[in-house]
Amino acid sequence: MSAGLRPSVFDELESEVRSYCRRWPTTFATASGSWLTDETGHEYLDFFAGAGSLNYGHNNPVLKSALVDYVARDGITHSLDTYTVAKREFLETLHRVVLAPRNLDYKVQFPGPTGTNAVEAALKLARKCTGRETIISFTNAFHGMTLGALAVTGNSMKRAGAGVPLVHTTPMPFDHYLGGTVDDFHWLEHALENSGSGLEKPAAVIVETVQGEGGVNVARPQWLRALAQLCRDRDILLIVDDVQMGCGRTGPFFSFEDAGIEPDIVTLSKSISGYGLPMALTLLKPHLDIWEPGEHNGTFRGNNLAFVTARAALEHYWNDDGLEGATRRRGEMMSAAFTDLTATLPTVSSRGRGMIQGLVFADAAQAARVSAHAFEHGLLVETSGPRDEVVKLLPPLTATDDEIAYGIRILADAATAATNHH
Amino acid sequence: MSAGLRPSVFDELESEVRSYCRRWPTTFATASGSWLTDETGHEYLDFFAGAGSLNYGHNNPVLKSALVDYVARDGITHSLDTYTVAKREFLETLHRVVLAPRNLDYKVQFPGPTGTNAVEAALKLARKCTGRETIISFTNAFHGMTLGALAVTGNSMKRAGAGVPLVHTTPMPFDHYLGGTVDDFHWLEHALENSGSGLEKPAAVIVETVQGEGGVNVARPQWLRALAQLCRDRDILLIVDDVQMGCGRTGPFFSFEDAGIEPDIVTLSKSISGYGLPMALTLLKPHLDIWEPGEHNGTFRGNNLAFVTARAALEHYWNDDGLEGATRRRGEMMSAAFTDLTATLPTVSSRGRGMIQGLVFADAAQAARVSAHAFEHGLLVETSGPRDEVVKLLPPLTATDDEIAYGIRILADAATAATNHH
Amino acid sequence: MSAGLRPSVFDELESEVRSYCRRWPTTFATASGSWLTDETGHEYLDFFAGAGSLNYGHNNPVLKSALVDYVARDGITHSLDTYTVAKREFLETLHRVVLAPRNLDYKVQFPGPTGTNAVEAALKLARKCTGRETIISFTNAFHGMTLGALAVTGNSMKRAGAGVPLVHTTPMPFDHYLGGTVDDFHWLEHALENSGSGLEKPAAVIVETVQGEGGVNVARPQWLRALAQLCRDRDILLIVDDVQMGCGRTGPFFSFEDAGIEPDIVTLSKSISGYGLPMALTLLKPHLDIWEPGEHNGTFRGNNLAFVTARAALEHYWNDDGLEGATRRRGEMMSAAFTDLTATLPTVSSRGRGMIQGLVFADAAQAARVSAHAFEHGLLVETSGPRDEVVKLLPPLTATDDEIAYGIRILADAATAATNHH
Amino acid sequence: MSAGLRPSVFDELESEVRSYCRRWPTTFATASGSWLTDETGHEYLDFFAGAGSLNYGHNNPVLKSALVDYVARDGITHSLDTYTVAKREFLETLHRVVLAPRNLDYKVQFPGPTGTNAVEAALKLARKCTGRETIISFTNAFHGMTLGALAVTGNSMKRAGAGVPLVHTTPMPFDHYLGGTVDDFHWLEHALENSGSGLEKPAAVIVETVQGEGGVNVARPQWLRALAQLCRDRDILLIVDDVQMGCGRTGPFFSFEDAGIEPDIVTLSKSISGYGLPMALTLLKPHLDIWEPGEHNGTFRGNNLAFVTARAALEHYWNDDGLEGATRRRGEMMSAAFTDLTATLPTVSSRGRGMIQGLVFADAAQAARVSAHAFEHGLLVETSGPRDEVVKLLPPLTATDDEIAYGIRILADAATAATNHH
Repeated sequence: MSAGLRPSVFDELESEVRSYCRRWPTTFATASGSWLTDETGHEYLDFFAGAGSLNYGHNNPVLKSALVDYVARDGITHSLDTYTVAKREFLETLHRVVLAPRNLDYKVQFPGPTGTNAVEAALKLARKCTGRETIISFTNAFHGMTLGALAVTGNSMKRAGAGVPLVHTTPMPFDHYLGGTVDDFHWLEHALENSGSGLEKPAAVIVETVQGEGGVNVARPQWLRALAQLCRDRDILLIVDDVQMGCGRTGPFFSFEDAGIEPDIVTLSKSISGYGLPMALTLLKPHLDIWEPGEHNGTFRGNNLAFVTARAALEHYWNDDGLEGATRRRGEMMSAAFTDLTATLPTVSSRGRGMIQGLVFADAAQAARVSAHAFEHGLLVETSGPRDEVVKLLPPLTATDDEIAYGIRILADAATAATNHH
Repeated sequence: MSAGLRPSVFDELESEVRSYCRRWPTTFATASGSWLTDETGHEYLDFFAGAGSLNYGHNNPVLKSALVDYVARDGITHSLDTYTVAKREFLETLHRVVLAPRNLDYKVQFPGPTGTNAVEAALKLARKCTGRETIISFTNAFHGMTLGALAVTGNSMKRAGAGVPLVHTTPMPFDHYLGGTVDDFHWLEHALENSGSGLEKPAAVIVETVQGEGGVNVARPQWLRALAQLCRDRDILLIVDDVQMGCGRTGPFFSFEDAGIEPDIVTLSKSISGYGLPMALTLLKPHLDIWEPGEHNGTFRGNNLAFVTARAALEHYWNDDGLEGATRRRGEMMSAAFTDLTATLPTVSSRGRGMIQGLVFADAAQAARVSAHAFEHGLLVETSGPRDEVVKLLPPLTATDDEIAYGIRILADAATAATNHH
Repeated sequence: MSAGLRPSVFDELESEVRSYCRRWPTTFATASGSWLTDETGHEYLDFFAGAGSLNYGHNNPVLKSALVDYVARDGITHSLDTYTVAKREFLETLHRVVLAPRNLDYKVQFPGPTGTNAVEAALKLARKCTGRETIISFTNAFHGMTLGALAVTGNSMKRAGAGVPLVHTTPMPFDHYLGGTVDDFHWLEHALENSGSGLEKPAAVIVETVQGEGGVNVARPQWLRALAQLCRDRDILLIVDDVQMGCGRTGPFFSFEDAGIEPDIVTLSKSISGYGLPMALTLLKPHLDIWEPGEHNGTFRGNNLAFVTARAALEHYWNDDGLEGATRRRGEMMSAAFTDLTATLPTVSSRGRGMIQGLVFADAAQAARVSAHAFEHGLLVETSGPRDEVVKLLPPLTATDDEIAYGIRILADAATAATNHH
Repeated sequence: MSAGLRPSVFDELESEVRSYCRRWPTTFATASGSWLTDETGHEYLDFFAGAGSLNYGHNNPVLKSALVDYVARDGITHSLDTYTVAKREFLETLHRVVLAPRNLDYKVQFPGPTGTNAVEAALKLARKCTGRETIISFTNAFHGMTLGALAVTGNSMKRAGAGVPLVHTTPMPFDHYLGGTVDDFHWLEHALENSGSGLEKPAAVIVETVQGEGGVNVARPQWLRALAQLCRDRDILLIVDDVQMGCGRTGPFFSFEDAGIEPDIVTLSKSISGYGLPMALTLLKPHLDIWEPGEHNGTFRGNNLAFVTARAALEHYWNDDGLEGATRRRGEMMSAAFTDLTATLPTVSSRGRGMIQGLVFADAAQAARVSAHAFEHGLLVETSGPRDEVVKLLPPLTATDDEIAYGIRILADAATAATNHH
């Protein structure tokens, strides 16, 4: 039986909403480190990493061991928000390994175990704390698909899916959106200062330091600092959505560390469990912790298997600066390779920070061809951006230099082929 | 070191939003079947079952075996919405064991892996399909905490957490809400028929067949049939939120089977994975499957560990009618015991269907005392209802007759003590 | 030149939104008392009275004299909200003739000079005073066409004109809407009392004592009293929209007097100026007067010609109970005649209070035929109700008994003809 | 009895929302041309003109004669939207004198007789025609106080009066708002072109050519042309709110004529009746006239006294270009005088177009002192702008050169005194 026939149950039973399977039309069976294997035995190098959920690779053996051990000894699996040993150990490790060394005093909320739930909790809390309704978001932002998070997401197709008007939010230009011709925050500052502007004073600003889904748009540190200052000066809360860029993707644990800012609220998900298990956190400054018990809840807040792998990941990868250094180094390796590549391809440019890198095509069809060509040659890369014009690269942070180099070679071939296509 | 001291990291680090841990102030370590064990070795009989997420008990050995085996052989863990072997096998099993025998032709959407994500997808789709905005919900409904789901949730404390007005929804009285003095749907039917009523024609009605969080309110089959008819006659979509009551809680796999209705959209979560792992489904009639690819997405849609345990649960428990019959029998056992009990306690009554049962106290403080007394005697039971006046009982469906009887005895003592309290 | 040709400039220049001219296809030139004359000299008895704006008849000589005198001596015409002699005299008269004798201590707001502006001011104030957003309105209510007022209006065609969802309002059944089979307020009271109902606690209830546009639906005094009590008990503001039914239409100056209730806010417009000149008032209890200066404004708040005729009307018609008594008597004359008429027409019924009366046709097409037949025989009557099934009669309160009798005869012929039509 | 005592009935009875009376604490009795007289005989030169409603002066004898004649012969006063002779003659005159000579093919809607009603009709129609919800408005815009119009108004104090969130609108910077440092429409164009911007495609843009209430902010013709082009290119409707700046205030009948643009929808009110009588028009391109009959209505649409004076004003003042020329000339006279004045006052500047001129004070308290000083010396001028920092001058267009010069002298003294104040 050929692979081509096997997806038929998907065609018959699964909703048309399915998406990535259309890009990568095969059925995956197993995975390990930077590699996936489909049911026919084909292997694929993964420069997608579960959209940033697998920063430590697939089925990382360190985490796997902790997971199997916990399951084997009947550690409690599902606990809602009761206290459990696994949750305590995760919290202790998060504090010791991540928060305390960075002098961060966040309190930790466990919302439902997805990024969008963490964002919903952040938005609700910002509104509750300030008594205001408006949230400032940025062009090409992506924060999730539930109604609150969707209202701060830019993509018009996804917004239209809401079926109701998405309100109480105002988009502002992200860094570089206006091509550097306009002073940053010129419009936002004027609108906030002027009582006749018609812009409601916002509860919060929500921002990604690097917009992955939006097309690998990188905010400069000085832009982030100015944004943080603007918020602080006007008593507006700053929410950094670090769901995709946190957990080391850009180098440091939090993507905002390099800018030297300290958001009021931070959302984490994707790679926080380390093993691809659903988990999410909303970190909040202590004075914002005015929740009533149970005011925001969710059944899968207590996914203890995720707590176990999350703790193991923190212990193994974040007790020293090894991973951070390696990520910076490999990011530069990718960046340098893409600089070389795009020097030969006039309609292609590159951008990124750490191990999130993008190849930007003037012609979006070329980006699609690169992704297709890469798949045919055993490399998984997705596209993003408002026109899907950016080939977005997120290898596992644990990918070896050889794997990175191998993937880059396939990409270079694919980009060359795609831009020569008639 | 006493158990009392150990939670301190929670006090310091975890947000005040935590809730169940306040009712059960201990730290759980392991769990098996109907029992949890805390870190000091105390054992607790579980009549809570992860708020309905553990219908097959904690760490069910059949599911555990499938899970450990899959993890051990590096089955792919996280796949977004690519095709995987585990997902295909789950879909095939769902079709063969659940849908086909019931002549249900639903297509299956994998939203983010929580109930609220499944509800958000359902509401978005209903609005997209009909081009209308309003959703009819019911008094004391609970559908989730993200902004779309919260707007159809009744609880005023949770609604206030939104920080923005919750609109595009209209509550209607649930069965028995008006004490049986009013014809069902009298008001709703008039309002829909009359072009001057001011009620916008709704996209959909969303209903739970038994409201768990709302206080174990049981809709009669004839009420559900009349609701389904009303929707069908007026081209309004019917959404059954079976997140808590599905997967056999009331006896049959879907809680609406006994009423003989066939909703347009069904949400499932909680016990669908069987092992307490985050997973959710939105089932939709094929003609409603007008989603654009990727129009609703989410990072943890492809939680393959959950697919593996979900499939094992369906294969093991739903290939015959054994579990359904046992659930009905044990439900009657509970119901009979509570009828006897409440006959002796004039201010207490009972209600329920299958293995969701409630003890209703005129004085909500007594319900709180029952829960506290039960905890002290090694039984976990929560309260629900608008005033938390209902002791809500959801033992694992796999609890033995002896376990059920043991729990009932503790409850009877607790209820007697609570109602004698001065 | 025939009348039929003359409207051509209207066809070419005036928007399709025009409406009454389609029912009465002629061009009116002059008017006096209960009669209009078109440009060809045809006379029409007016049982429409400017939709209730001409309670004292067309170009009432008492008011006309005051108006001409004021214009002639260059009394200030347009004053915004500066103080003027004409405004002071109106206020003094309103106080002396209307408010003081009824022990009403309302403060007077002059919003823009239309009913919808008065309603918008009332809704804004109710929300500002309570800090809540929801307004309860009633089925078949009509309160105006601007966005705030439209949201509490029932008619679905008019609501659809908004182009945005109309939110922050919840309709409830008006008196008799459910056919008397349901206890009044059963649903509303339960929903307000129960914290899980999903109904937000409202800022206010807005009600018409008789719904004119909605089809001459008459609220019983005991229903109004129970509504007022329900509001008082729950700290909800009661707004009576007396735009059409105030100024004596039902007998007393305010339509709510017979019920013995005292609303928190009252809107007046239509006949308050007496002469058909644009004017509106929002009356508010003194403790609600928390407006900032200029927080709600409007250019034509100071229409002094209207103040002059309004004062003259109050002085002439409301210094004794003559008009009130006459209105009650003529209302009974109409009611008795319609009772007799409908006794002979099994598919027609009648209802009303004072000089607002309706003939209700089971077949809405018959109501349209009655209106057309009446126009052909020199009588102006409109239809209302959700299906336009009610012939709505609002003669000037100053119509003579003979005029009333004459109109009734035409109506009786028209109704008989319309119901015999095949 | 002194004038000071007479307002007491206002204090006792009129709502605190009253505003202009606080600036000008006297009671006006009569008015003629450019002058008001209070009840004690004091005369005031009027550089306020009913906030732009009295472009032809108070009680203009030409209009007065037409009005008195119409009232005397019992012309129909109140007609809703039936056809009347007075309405036809107004429409014919509007067509012949205003629309046809300018090659404008607008259809005419008579909404309720206030500017805010005209704006509400415009917004509803734009949404209905496009099927979109968002309206783009500008910083410091003023469009009215009803809920729809308030949502496109900038002033934060007035917005807060809504009591509900004002949504479906997005403010953009008006011309010069960003100090000329940013390309016009840079942000708006980018946001509209980019499918990921998060800005919903708007139904319409609503703009004033000169923002009166906003502080006499004058849009350059090239800015207006670029805005019109931007709308045309993207199928967005352009609404010009000409309520205050139309009817000749800036010179030509419509304020947008000098820019050579042709809006899709135009709102007129204030001076359209000429005599200060409530009247409003919404002009719409014929292909937009998709209203259902009665879909937007209002009781005082048929204010025939206003139609009579409106027609007389058009006939008398707009059959030739005399008034336009005089307005331009007197506007330049004012402008030149203010240029001279501000040359001597370093913290004061001036701006305006035609006979709307503003003196802008760096210190808002000085603007308040100018207004107070002017009142004491018999001149009525108001302030506007987000901080009330602009003395806003709108003399009647019919003011004589001597009156203009007299007012300017008082202003010069007032400005000099105010800026010397310690």
